[in-house]
Amino acid sequence: MNIKMGVAKAGIKPSGDYDILVVKFPLSVYSAVFTQNSLAAAPVLYDRLVCEIQDRILALVINSGNANAATGQKGFENAEKMVEITAECLGLDKSEVMVFSTGVIGVQLPMDKVENGIKQACQNLQDLDLELAARAISTTDTFYKYYETTGMIDGEVFTVKGIAKGAGMIHPNMATMLAYIFTDVKIDKDLLDKATKLVVDRTFNSISVDGCESTNDSFVVVATGESKVEINDSNRVYFTKKLYEVALELAKMIVKDGEGATKLIEINVFQASSKEEAKKVGEAIATSNLFKTAMFGNDPNWGRILSAVGQLHLDIDFSKVKLYLGDFLLYNGEPIEFDRSAAIEYLKNNKEIVINLYLSRGEQEWTFYTCDLGYKYVEINAEYTT
Amino acid sequence: MNIKMGVAKAGIKPSGDYDILVVKFPLSVYSAVFTQNSLAAAPVLYDRLVCEIQDRILALVINSGNANAATGQKGFENAEKMVEITAECLGLDKSEVMVFSTGVIGVQLPMDKVENGIKQACQNLQDLDLELAARAISTTDTFYKYYETTGMIDGEVFTVKGIAKGAGMIHPNMATMLAYIFTDVKIDKDLLDKATKLVVDRTFNSISVDGCESTNDSFVVVATGESKVEINDSNRVYFTKKLYEVALELAKMIVKDGEGATKLIEINVFQASSKEEAKKVGEAIATSNLFKTAMFGNDPNWGRILSAVGQLHLDIDFSKVKLYLGDFLLYNGEPIEFDRSAAIEYLKNNKEIVINLYLSRGEQEWTFYTCDLGYKYVEINAEYTT
Repeated sequence: MNIKMGVAKAGIKPSGDYDILVVKFPLSVYSAVFTQNSLAAAPVLYDRLVCEIQDRILALVINSGNANAATGQKGFENAEKMVEITAECLGLDKSEVMVFSTGVIGVQLPMDKVENGIKQACQNLQDLDLELAARAISTTDTFYKYYETTGMIDGEVFTVKGIAKGAGMIHPNMATMLAYIFTDVKIDKDLLDKATKLVVDRTFNSISVDGCESTNDSFVVVATGESKVEINDSNRVYFTKKLYEVALELAKMIVKDGEGATKLIEINVFQASSKEEAKKVGEAIATSNLFKTAMFGNDPNWGRILSAVGQLHLDIDFSKVKLYLGDFLLYNGEPIEFDRSAAIEYLKNNKEIVINLYLSRGEQEWTFYTCDLGYKYVEINAEYTT
Repeated sequence: MNIKMGVAKAGIKPSGDYDILVVKFPLSVYSAVFTQNSLAAAPVLYDRLVCEIQDRILALVINSGNANAATGQKGFENAEKMVEITAECLGLDKSEVMVFSTGVIGVQLPMDKVENGIKQACQNLQDLDLELAARAISTTDTFYKYYETTGMIDGEVFTVKGIAKGAGMIHPNMATMLAYIFTDVKIDKDLLDKATKLVVDRTFNSISVDGCESTNDSFVVVATGESKVEINDSNRVYFTKKLYEVALELAKMIVKDGEGATKLIEINVFQASSKEEAKKVGEAIATSNLFKTAMFGNDPNWGRILSAVGQLHLDIDFSKVKLYLGDFLLYNGEPIEFDRSAAIEYLKNNKEIVINLYLSRGEQEWTFYTCDLGYKYVEINAEYTT
């Protein structure tokens, strides 16, 4: 893919590491999904306007270390200014650039540093380097998150590449999740929007680290159209699966990097009466502190799982519910005997835990991902002032 | 008040302390409110039936150490059996007794021990001793919760006394909150139900330790009618305030005893467009792990408070919002300068923290109570298997 990028150490991040990323690509179809948090950050407010007027874009500019959120009118002007500087440096129209920020909430951007950083990044464009790009957008991430795959349609290869950052809404007020996926297929905006919607629901919208939705969450898919593969109704399912593969891997990396997480937990909800119900049930379990601390403590505590489900106030008949932890049947409509020591060993010896819950209410399913909750979460989130 | 009680050490609690409480009173009007969790415990399912057929009751029987929840048909039969044993020992009709349990989920009651305990408690009735009664229903509570007050109407005194237990949904699967309030006023069931509903919404339904609603939550108000005070439309507000006083003190004790809590946090939401909105906003803050860990870390982190509100997806205009921590104005429609060190000192030096949030959307208000989230919460909830 003919995608260029530039990075800079602008001095926004306390660590002094790369904190500006500029990505430039051929005029491309895109889909964008933003946080629903009504305290949406300035760049999110700005980009929503771009989405209303533009079907195609040419560049992204991202800073890490400052979220430009809860920053009022001045914050909005600063987001717009970032776009203007980028457009000018790259010789583009202002309306073809989107802007993103992640980092501390409620502090105005140091615009001198930002301006210098963007200029420097634009002057040193190079080929897309996923690891370096992921590094430049990271905040408290403990590893850089990127993934790529290829697909083939009618003998022609296409590529899907992505980067992401995020590990909870984090320390101090780092705003969660940014994810960008680039592909070289030809696709019209309507089909790409549909694919993106499907994928984001099953991936980035089905993960929870601490139940806190950030002010800056953004996910953008860019399709440059450079390959010979053209997506249409007959092959869109295959393309969507490839997009899903990349998004899911990135989403799981975010959960694995959840603050203080020791385990990735996959919660599969089966036999729900609707997809929405299955998702709600998965989310209720994934956001239960009691469940998450039990997982941290290697405790096959099925009562906390069922009780989290009960808290939804659905009319679930628990005498028909089955619950598995890995291969262990823990509950079968009533408390049953199970090999507790073996279940504890399963929790102790695996970094990826699977919960399968059968509701016996229908045929729909959903998978939600979360991590456990341990001391480190408290340490990361409580101790930055000391 | 002519209220008798009996306690016993039946051996249900691992600690060996009192775990059966029987309370006997004159034929009394009552109001009862139960958990909405659809995995409601067997005694809750049983008592709901009592509520459908009985306006007046004569006794309560409560065990601690086992929640009799997620125990299926056998659990229901055991709850009924507890009622039968109590009724027989006290010479009452089965339909005049309510039953409650709190403790481990998913384990059948040791009915031999329970039966012996109830018999022993019924044979040793004594005058109501709030501290001893609170002790007999406690599980992981670190202190016993009871409170009493008196009121006067037309020169006649009446009394309101209450006990409670609960400190989160807790270790290992202890089911949260039980609360009982006894008063000697004369009141009809309709007025008592109305007063109870008003009070429970502003007290037990406005507290959160970890956002987890238990399978066993129950709150019962018993009015014996022994005093000369008769509650009617002209004095019911005064009576409701007295009931509120007792319920609020008990509710705040539960929050103070939240697992690992070092602070009681009072969240006042003002200028909301409706009471429901004000309550939802308070609850969103009260259940945010990021906010609660910040409080534990003495961090005046206003971004986490506003972001928790934003997560409700209401169309709040944050440029009109004001946020105070104690007397410190932290946010005034935009980030402002405030004395950060003094705000940190306020958090460090106070066990009761006040947050005042002005939404600028209307005239309704609500108060929600929560505690901070620290290492001890993780320890209590994660480490019982080790």
